[in-house]
Amino acid sequence: MFLPRGILAEKLLWVLAEDLGQGDVTTALVVPSRAKAEARVIAKEAGVAAGIEEAEVLLDALELGFKAYVGDGADVMPWQTLLEISGDARTILSVERTLLNLISRMSGIATATRRIVEKIKSSGYKARVACTRKTAPGLMYFDKKAVLVGGGDPHRLHLDDMLLIKDNHVVFAGGVENAVKIAREKASFSKKIEVEVSNLGDVLAAAKAGADIIMLDNFSPNMVDEAINLLRKEGFLGKVLVEVSGRITAENVIDFASRGVDIISLGEITHSVKAFDVSLEIIKQ
Amino acid sequence: MFLPRGILAEKLLWVLAEDLGQGDVTTALVVPSRAKAEARVIAKEAGVAAGIEEAEVLLDALELGFKAYVGDGADVMPWQTLLEISGDARTILSVERTLLNLISRMSGIATATRRIVEKIKSSGYKARVACTRKTAPGLMYFDKKAVLVGGGDPHRLHLDDMLLIKDNHVVFAGGVENAVKIAREKASFSKKIEVEVSNLGDVLAAAKAGADIIMLDNFSPNMVDEAINLLRKEGFLGKVLVEVSGRITAENVIDFASRGVDIISLGEITHSVKAFDVSLEIIKQ
Amino acid sequence: MFLPRGILAEKLLWVLAEDLGQGDVTTALVVPSRAKAEARVIAKEAGVAAGIEEAEVLLDALELGFKAYVGDGADVMPWQTLLEISGDARTILSVERTLLNLISRMSGIATATRRIVEKIKSSGYKARVACTRKTAPGLMYFDKKAVLVGGGDPHRLHLDDMLLIKDNHVVFAGGVENAVKIAREKASFSKKIEVEVSNLGDVLAAAKAGADIIMLDNFSPNMVDEAINLLRKEGFLGKVLVEVSGRITAENVIDFASRGVDIISLGEITHSVKAFDVSLEIIKQ
Amino acid sequence: MFLPRGILAEKLLWVLAEDLGQGDVTTALVVPSRAKAEARVIAKEAGVAAGIEEAEVLLDALELGFKAYVGDGADVMPWQTLLEISGDARTILSVERTLLNLISRMSGIATATRRIVEKIKSSGYKARVACTRKTAPGLMYFDKKAVLVGGGDPHRLHLDDMLLIKDNHVVFAGGVENAVKIAREKASFSKKIEVEVSNLGDVLAAAKAGADIIMLDNFSPNMVDEAINLLRKEGFLGKVLVEVSGRITAENVIDFASRGVDIISLGEITHSVKAFDVSLEIIKQ
Amino acid sequence: MFLPRGILAEKLLWVLAEDLGQGDVTTALVVPSRAKAEARVIAKEAGVAAGIEEAEVLLDALELGFKAYVGDGADVMPWQTLLEISGDARTILSVERTLLNLISRMSGIATATRRIVEKIKSSGYKARVACTRKTAPGLMYFDKKAVLVGGGDPHRLHLDDMLLIKDNHVVFAGGVENAVKIAREKASFSKKIEVEVSNLGDVLAAAKAGADIIMLDNFSPNMVDEAINLLRKEGFLGKVLVEVSGRITAENVIDFASRGVDIISLGEITHSVKAFDVSLEIIKQ
Amino acid sequence: MFLPRGILAEKLLWVLAEDLGQGDVTTALVVPSRAKAEARVIAKEAGVAAGIEEAEVLLDALELGFKAYVGDGADVMPWQTLLEISGDARTILSVERTLLNLISRMSGIATATRRIVEKIKSSGYKARVACTRKTAPGLMYFDKKAVLVGGGDPHRLHLDDMLLIKDNHVVFAGGVENAVKIAREKASFSKKIEVEVSNLGDVLAAAKAGADIIMLDNFSPNMVDEAINLLRKEGFLGKVLVEVSGRITAENVIDFASRGVDIISLGEITHSVKAFDVSLEIIKQ
Repeated sequence: MFLPRGILAEKLLWVLAEDLGQGDVTTALVVPSRAKAEARVIAKEAGVAAGIEEAEVLLDALELGFKAYVGDGADVMPWQTLLEISGDARTILSVERTLLNLISRMSGIATATRRIVEKIKSSGYKARVACTRKTAPGLMYFDKKAVLVGGGDPHRLHLDDMLLIKDNHVVFAGGVENAVKIAREKASFSKKIEVEVSNLGDVLAAAKAGADIIMLDNFSPNMVDEAINLLRKEGFLGKVLVEVSGRITAENVIDFASRGVDIISLGEITHSVKAFDVSLEIIKQ
Repeated sequence: MFLPRGILAEKLLWVLAEDLGQGDVTTALVVPSRAKAEARVIAKEAGVAAGIEEAEVLLDALELGFKAYVGDGADVMPWQTLLEISGDARTILSVERTLLNLISRMSGIATATRRIVEKIKSSGYKARVACTRKTAPGLMYFDKKAVLVGGGDPHRLHLDDMLLIKDNHVVFAGGVENAVKIAREKASFSKKIEVEVSNLGDVLAAAKAGADIIMLDNFSPNMVDEAINLLRKEGFLGKVLVEVSGRITAENVIDFASRGVDIISLGEITHSVKAFDVSLEIIKQ
Repeated sequence: MFLPRGILAEKLLWVLAEDLGQGDVTTALVVPSRAKAEARVIAKEAGVAAGIEEAEVLLDALELGFKAYVGDGADVMPWQTLLEISGDARTILSVERTLLNLISRMSGIATATRRIVEKIKSSGYKARVACTRKTAPGLMYFDKKAVLVGGGDPHRLHLDDMLLIKDNHVVFAGGVENAVKIAREKASFSKKIEVEVSNLGDVLAAAKAGADIIMLDNFSPNMVDEAINLLRKEGFLGKVLVEVSGRITAENVIDFASRGVDIISLGEITHSVKAFDVSLEIIKQ
Repeated sequence: MFLPRGILAEKLLWVLAEDLGQGDVTTALVVPSRAKAEARVIAKEAGVAAGIEEAEVLLDALELGFKAYVGDGADVMPWQTLLEISGDARTILSVERTLLNLISRMSGIATATRRIVEKIKSSGYKARVACTRKTAPGLMYFDKKAVLVGGGDPHRLHLDDMLLIKDNHVVFAGGVENAVKIAREKASFSKKIEVEVSNLGDVLAAAKAGADIIMLDNFSPNMVDEAINLLRKEGFLGKVLVEVSGRITAENVIDFASRGVDIISLGEITHSVKAFDVSLEIIKQ
Repeated sequence: MFLPRGILAEKLLWVLAEDLGQGDVTTALVVPSRAKAEARVIAKEAGVAAGIEEAEVLLDALELGFKAYVGDGADVMPWQTLLEISGDARTILSVERTLLNLISRMSGIATATRRIVEKIKSSGYKARVACTRKTAPGLMYFDKKAVLVGGGDPHRLHLDDMLLIKDNHVVFAGGVENAVKIAREKASFSKKIEVEVSNLGDVLAAAKAGADIIMLDNFSPNMVDEAINLLRKEGFLGKVLVEVSGRITAENVIDFASRGVDIISLGEITHSVKAFDVSLEIIKQ
Repeated sequence: MFLPRGILAEKLLWVLAEDLGQGDVTTALVVPSRAKAEARVIAKEAGVAAGIEEAEVLLDALELGFKAYVGDGADVMPWQTLLEISGDARTILSVERTLLNLISRMSGIATATRRIVEKIKSSGYKARVACTRKTAPGLMYFDKKAVLVGGGDPHRLHLDDMLLIKDNHVVFAGGVENAVKIAREKASFSKKIEVEVSNLGDVLAAAKAGADIIMLDNFSPNMVDEAINLLRKEGFLGKVLVEVSGRITAENVIDFASRGVDIISLGEITHSVKAFDVSLEIIKQ
């Protein structure tokens, strides 16, 4: 998910523009027009820093100076300085909230992701932690980038980069097997084919029809066991990837990881984000 | 925050476009090109519906039929149908996730807001619940609209609609008193002036200098008491509004409401949203 | 109304793009491709300079050098140099008209505003001069910024930053009193509430219902007197602001100011602008 | 200047969006959410209607009903109804000001243009009245369309549709003659070539070098006479068009028209517009 | 590559807007303002129709009526009617060229693609025909859609949907083997990994390192044979896909197809398009 | 067709953004994040370079260093270096294809145009070579700019810069003569009037009615002769320009040029472009 800075800057200026409306009326009146300032962005809790690259690009687009003290993905401690910023005081104050909102949401996502990733890794399981498309509306880029920073897998980046046949698609194709067959026949060679299944019968049908990835949707850990065993018995294990999804949280994730699945996807890391606490302080004027 | 549908549609199509990229490759292959469908959007938990108007506008812009079973702000029960949708099957499946992401985030915000509003109201206090500008980046419109739906106060809609002099502004104005004086002298008559204070001395200075609203930032409940008493003694109570902000949560909100403040603002209702669980089911093809 | 330069630049490049179409065909053929030039923007009449900041941001976005000889709000004399510009000759000639149109319109507005402001001030009255939303379509930012530069009050910046209940709203609320009551009850604490009234009865009803500002619409100076006296008698003077609007011009403005109103709003300073005469001259190639 | 409605609608929605910001807060609170209304747009003075097509397209894009009582270019009387509008009351009130600003500016331009056109025509002269690129910034489309509606000539629509060699271009080409020669040699056959001249010598040089149109810039009426005579003597009259420009107003225009020029261009009809007085009244709810 | 019509319409109106500039001046003057027309879009040569869906969406966005006589992918004969259009005459004439340009380019691409696909199929080979990212700048959506209509494989839709490690990437990773290893370790499970190789040694290294697809770049048919044999011998055939690319044309494609490759990608079907001849004729006014 | 760099950059970033989608996933994983690179853009065949200015502006917008070894319009040889680029390696690799697509298409157009221009010139004829509006959809700027670089005439830049009355317009005006008369009467003095004719009778009618340019559409060379003779006999030659269009190719162009026409327009130079072969090579990391 590399975007050249000129492209990323446009996305970020658009976010800033919403907050500005016709302009910052407080700053215009209270802060002198040529005043300079230096400021620090400071973590107020422990976690994983994210949004640092975005902050740099935004500050650069506004012709502010900056120095990042940590990179994306760094573990940070309370009161640690993330960035130093210098330049036009009005500009710094006008961008403050947008900058903090970006870092706060992205670091919140990265922190939650990292915790789950570490939990699984420290328990010795191989499962990757993936997010879903359940992001804040219109923020798929930033949310998925934050998952990546936290060590997770971004999964599909939008609707054009993999086939993921869900229950509602299956309705129109007359069953899982048929849906996968159609996809296998018509899809570009460049795309993987994943299918969501809700019972054991469909697990095998999907594998036989040529799915690259099988998503066990809302399976209990025991049902996951059965599905894995079935795939092993039929010789598909290692050939298809197994993803589990649905009602998985940071709390019960080990129950699933321990069954030997390849991917565990969780909606909560992007749809129910806990903001990371961060603030900006003027250190010199 | 009324937007004519033609204007709101543009915002919503932009959100959808991010998810689509070059197009939905799954739907294109698995769902026949002229297939029709009917679908229901169903709540999976109890809460307050929001995003219904946005859903209607988006569906309308995509030439899909729809019938809303609840309006924004309605209390909904698990398994309650929110919307019925009909029309081109590929279009319904392509917009499914964007639609659910909107309703899910907005209903999550409205639900959390309503709970706090009700908690205060049922305890007999007058304080209004307000959100801040700590929203998901670029989603200030949707997040604030959802707060309104939940019975909260949207506070500033962006940086141009009220003067809110924060600690970092005060640094440049040489103190709270001076900052408020400058604002009072130069600001448009059409705008209110709010100032953030961090100690009792500044509370009185702010009131005397002519602030319309005083934000007690990170005050403990006892300090809030003292501030209110001071304002009462000096004859400012009822003339200035008192807002409390900082480290207030659904848990401790009554501690603040009981002190007689006018407004309680909480970052968490927009920066740490818990998604409302909602899904779309095909009911007929 | 402070906008960081990166945000303002986008607005200005959009304006320039309309004039360019597929490109400047004259300059492309008549001016050599690497030619350098120096130019001066010169006032051709006396007035108040505005649009200087906008000019700087636009020139900077085009990588042209510049030096401003006056700031926004400066009184300028005929033949006075406002700006010096240097750099790529083709770029200077392609932006010439857009640049002059901006300075010309904004200085025209600032000049007219300043004249009225000075007239009132020199007569010893307190009334502020405000503009309305009667701007050139889509140019609310530039027109209101120019009013501010001229010493006027920008009034609402758009439909989201104050409640202004006009005659057409009153129709739907069943009278002025009811309209103000509804607004007072439901509006965000962060917004002022203004109401337009057309008779003395409504003046008092509006004040009692809690309006922050009362706009006397199309009142004659004598009717204004009566309204002010009524408000004084009932103890509202000093608590509500009084705005007069409708058929007020630079000629009759003192008739209104002398009655003790707080704000005088005039449509003509933005809807019937007299362009300020300004030109660009090449001084060196 | 025909634009299909779908394209024009995008321009108009953009204008409306600026005024709305995060939404109309007054209408949202004071007008019930499903209220219907009927309204009339009424002229308050005599003049030439313009902006009617734009109004129709904007209303249509907002799904409001409308009936135009006059077409663009119609002579209207005070109190004459221009348009009737029906539909969602909140939408009507939210678009009211944008709609009136469009009609008011465009009708103001059309009215001023028509007066000058009629003055010349009734005096029996052939000269066409043209506008310049001195429009409100970014409003070249609307301003030039209004000139056309008023019976004027829109002149260049932007920098790409004719070569107009101005004094600042001549500086780089080493004289008028050389500039025209270069243009004649290199320009697309599809474009006319006009050149601005400031003395009689250049008039002849321009004609000989092959200019299609010669603009006499800041010539007095007597100098215009001399230029015309010179062109007649040398056999260029009827082959090149003669445009006069600079310091021409509605007052002195006949002085120029009477000299037999082909085109008279005036900046004031677009840069110093007097708004046409128009208002919207709710007639039924 | 399914896009809901509302999203596709925006792309198409953008294309139309470029052609319109400030509006169609010919149509505005020569065609009466309320004139109606019926028109036919007619093929002038044999080929494969494409761009029909795009035409429908564009016409619909302009409120024109239409009836498609063929669908995308249909074989058409000279003089066959593709579409009938009815409605506002000015709108039809203003969109004529944009509409034809879309159909002409897309049908040209589909026709060329189909010919190569049929050539391979009729010779009994399995190889798929794919395009590359060598499209007209900014037209990747339309060009790839046309390839799909012609029976080809669209390959990557942009840079985010598959890893394709090209020679210039390999430079930074220290060899093909290492590049694939890094990708295999870090890439999302949702993406395939393809690598471009230029010699036989790298073919095997790529397969061993875990590439999903190996692109033989600029291999002669005989070198392709060797690569396939090597992969077969090492047991990779059937597990990795083999793509050939570079200097392959409609003429020599069978030479490559006959070697048993899976995918043949050709730049020429999108970078050197021969326009399909199509015209619009007014049939009734 | 001069566009200041800030305006051109926006067009180019838009093109790049389509290719990037949510970001370059290959580069992000395989190329280290702070790696620097130097690269060369190299011609792989002989032709005329175009797109060099566009490349410079795009590279500059991405903060990459560059040095152009040739200018637009230069004759280049196989293996000749066009540009050297230096800077952030990931950015260079992400923009590689967009950059090459621009240069490849534009140089392809310029090369084809130059060959036809030279063919006519070396045969001693005066006819100019013009393109049409038959470009790739949405790429009129780039395609026409490339024609200009190749020595051709860009013809109309869009629908607003000349009147070109085509057969479909004539239908609505009741004949060629009437169509030209209407245009002559109503069109802006700033625009030329061209009319397309399909028989000898209309040639004369068009000339008499005042057309500036007559386009002989699908005339055989002999019919062109007759048309020219007719115009000569009636004294119009030298007063109107004669353009031939329709079924003219690089092969038969001399047949038309030799008849003494002024302009020869060919669709194929923009609608059926043969890409110019160009590649980017990393030379140093």
